Amino acid sequence: MELLLTYDVSTVTPEGRNRLRKVAKLCEGYGMRVQKSVFEIVCTDSELLTLLDAIKRIIADQEDSIRIYKVPKGSFRAVKTLGTAKPLPHDDALIM
Amino acid sequence: MELLLTYDVSTVTPEGRNRLRKVAKLCEGYGMRVQKSVFEIVCTDSELLTLLDAIKRIIADQEDSIRIYKVPKGSFRAVKTLGTAKPLPHDDALIM
Repeated sequence: MELLLTYDVSTVTPEGRNRLRKVAKLCEGYGMRVQKSVFEIVCTDSELLTLLDAIKRIIADQEDSIRIYKVPKGSFRAVKTLGTAKPLPHDDALIM
Repeated sequence: MELLLTYDVSTVTPEGRNRLRKVAKLCEGYGMRVQKSVFEIVCTDSELLTLLDAIKRIIADQEDSIRIYKVPKGSFRAVKTLGTAKPLPHDDALIM
């Protein structure tokens, strides 16, 4: 399935920056970091459970916000972009 | 239609913070700010054109990144959340 994960964390503190770095590293194992705190993820149901479990162990429950949206197949390619953003080729990346 | 708009902008500079504030104000006219730079938007095709046009006039083309994902109806309610994040009631908000 395809998921969009957004992570709101204060990067004013070194702790916040560290958590963002760790979550980014995790998410990059399943997809791509398309903005500083936005990740396009491709995974199975069971991989999602593993990912959620790992994320829960990193984030600060009372401070950070994670939102995960299930999106239809093809959404990453169909994204509308402005500024420096560009659609990123997941399939090619996975083949490489 | 329902859209997820994510805005990557450096908030280190006052100019960046100002652009984020302006984009947030615009987006809040069509939906809700659910994270610092993530907006759940409900709009028509023509409203989207108006919104995009207004955003283009605010953002710094060479620095900022805007991504807009079309999501299926009901996605905002079905969002999976961790930490302080919660699904937000768009319908109720619109009725009020």
